[in-house]
Amino acid sequence: MPSPALPLKLQDLPPRAAHLCLGVEAFFRELFSSSEHPHLPQSAVLGFSGGADSTALAVMLCCLSERLGLSLHVAHLDHGLRPESAREADQAKALCARLGLACVVERRDVAALAREHHLGIEEAGRRARYTFLETVRQETGADLCLTAHHLNDLAEDVLMRLVRGTGWPALGGMHALDLERCLLRPLLLTPREDIEQFLRDIGLDWTEDPSNLDMQFLRNRVRHTLLPLFVQENPNFLASISGLWRLAQLDSEYFLSLQPDISALLEVSQNSTTSLDSFQSENCPVRDSLDRHVIHENHTLFLGQDSLDLPPALRLRLYKLALEKLGLGQPLLETLFKLDRAWSERQTGKVFQFPGPKTAEIERHGIRFVQTRTK
Amino acid sequence: MPSPALPLKLQDLPPRAAHLCLGVEAFFRELFSSSEHPHLPQSAVLGFSGGADSTALAVMLCCLSERLGLSLHVAHLDHGLRPESAREADQAKALCARLGLACVVERRDVAALAREHHLGIEEAGRRARYTFLETVRQETGADLCLTAHHLNDLAEDVLMRLVRGTGWPALGGMHALDLERCLLRPLLLTPREDIEQFLRDIGLDWTEDPSNLDMQFLRNRVRHTLLPLFVQENPNFLASISGLWRLAQLDSEYFLSLQPDISALLEVSQNSTTSLDSFQSENCPVRDSLDRHVIHENHTLFLGQDSLDLPPALRLRLYKLALEKLGLGQPLLETLFKLDRAWSERQTGKVFQFPGPKTAEIERHGIRFVQTRTK
Repeated sequence: MPSPALPLKLQDLPPRAAHLCLGVEAFFRELFSSSEHPHLPQSAVLGFSGGADSTALAVMLCCLSERLGLSLHVAHLDHGLRPESAREADQAKALCARLGLACVVERRDVAALAREHHLGIEEAGRRARYTFLETVRQETGADLCLTAHHLNDLAEDVLMRLVRGTGWPALGGMHALDLERCLLRPLLLTPREDIEQFLRDIGLDWTEDPSNLDMQFLRNRVRHTLLPLFVQENPNFLASISGLWRLAQLDSEYFLSLQPDISALLEVSQNSTTSLDSFQSENCPVRDSLDRHVIHENHTLFLGQDSLDLPPALRLRLYKLALEKLGLGQPLLETLFKLDRAWSERQTGKVFQFPGPKTAEIERHGIRFVQTRTK
Repeated sequence: MPSPALPLKLQDLPPRAAHLCLGVEAFFRELFSSSEHPHLPQSAVLGFSGGADSTALAVMLCCLSERLGLSLHVAHLDHGLRPESAREADQAKALCARLGLACVVERRDVAALAREHHLGIEEAGRRARYTFLETVRQETGADLCLTAHHLNDLAEDVLMRLVRGTGWPALGGMHALDLERCLLRPLLLTPREDIEQFLRDIGLDWTEDPSNLDMQFLRNRVRHTLLPLFVQENPNFLASISGLWRLAQLDSEYFLSLQPDISALLEVSQNSTTSLDSFQSENCPVRDSLDRHVIHENHTLFLGQDSLDLPPALRLRLYKLALEKLGLGQPLLETLFKLDRAWSERQTGKVFQFPGPKTAEIERHGIRFVQTRTK
């Protein structure tokens, strides 16, 4: 059965679909318009599941590739969790062929990965996908990885972060452009409804991952129970989330703009044999424009007593910054407050545990932050 | 039937109840420890419904009155919505007599008030309560009004604000000390569970308002549906909310600390016949320590073009500040963003509507904020 022709240029799209596409382009450009990273990426790898979201994004980016000057690769990871997953990988390849896109397919045994690393299936799958995407990005020499997260995903993310007790501005949800991870999410402010309408408008079908209905995952309980309750109370809830996200981005930038002042208060421990280096990443051309402070070994940072002169709102963010510089793992807001109280009251010797794992110990003249993971 | 004796001093309380009481005292003192309002209030009026929350707070404050140097009045408003409400008013008086507290009872026809002002019953009741409390405060010459809002109320408030699309830091929930409204909420970080346990520990019964079960109210749908789902996902959810609230207070203070700089950008319109005055309230001794800018007539503020040099995060807060100075009514975050975009792009003549009602109009050299309510 021959497949119907796919629109490969903006002018081939029906009006409503073209309008949506132009909105995505505007958001894409807006993300790169800030002075920190003014250049549009020239090449990108799209994480492609075959679901509505990544299917729509693939088509949109094909239609926009000339206007954006973007060369696109596609990467599909077969999680090997369902019997039909191999067939879905073939479908992904077929769609990419129709769009004229190069497609890399790989299979990972996510269930084995989960067992091996004592992770939930969902988390193991997430990690496998991002690792695979980054590998393909490096192999193809692309500037960025793209994912098809949309506004409903963002709303779910905000609710999950609220569930977990995330502070501000992280409560505003995932970034649309994460230069640390060379990650871009061009659909982040596009509602899922508009994405499905786009596909219907161009007459393209999609497959849905049945695990999206599995209520053993927090994500799905948020998707199918919590989020609908919020939308029921406020039909404009998704637009509200979009506003909250924009505010969080502004506050995040604002706190970062103070960072040169406040991060001067962070020193590498004198006991450490290493130093804070500013380096240029070899791998991510877009990231090149950012200075990154990296602690190579010993994984220790020291925050001196000048920090007590800061407004508490900024001191809290400085703790968070120090912990982030030591690696992954989100600190609980409650623990940051306890740390701040202990430091303000000079409770020398007191130690606080953070995920990572990391610790913060109150010393006589400051706080020592240590990454305690054994290698 | 004689009622059992009530504990009227801290040393009369069972250990667990005394511990809770001391926690409330610590929070009470903490709220007044900031330099803005360093003096504890000497007298207060407690809004008393007869429910668990205000019953527990009345007993706690009796036990703490000597330690805090606080003289307490009680005010009970009979909403006249249920046949048993008159009897409940008598019960309130009887409990106050046992506690040795002066009690003012008044009856308002809240249903009629709702009809008259085209309000929901819940909103009409809320307004009637706060107006009544403030009246009693002024009549008794008390420093503050007290309400028994607790941590579950706060969590519900955060969820309702999220539903409505509130920005940060307002998303963190109601204030514990609101000097503008002479309002103090000493139980705001105490979980409802601890309050009920306190009453059981001292052998005191309470009546529950059956309208708390009425699912036609958003508040009750949040209480009985949304909040339990969050607690189910994270048994420490209430503690998380407490952390989020503390962070919001810090950020709120931080943005206020920048206010002298940013509010210098706000001028009273040259077309207006009035001026920004700094005045001392005659009514609220605690509030006396704050300067308040009030616009008496014409209700107009003008924000000049220097505002475009501010970081956007601060400019957004400046719009909010201008709107707040013009009176009640929460602006939608989305509208603030649209206003900011229009002002950045100098879309002269464009007008935005805000609740109050208020408007903001882009002019050639700034934004004119106007309170448009007809008197």
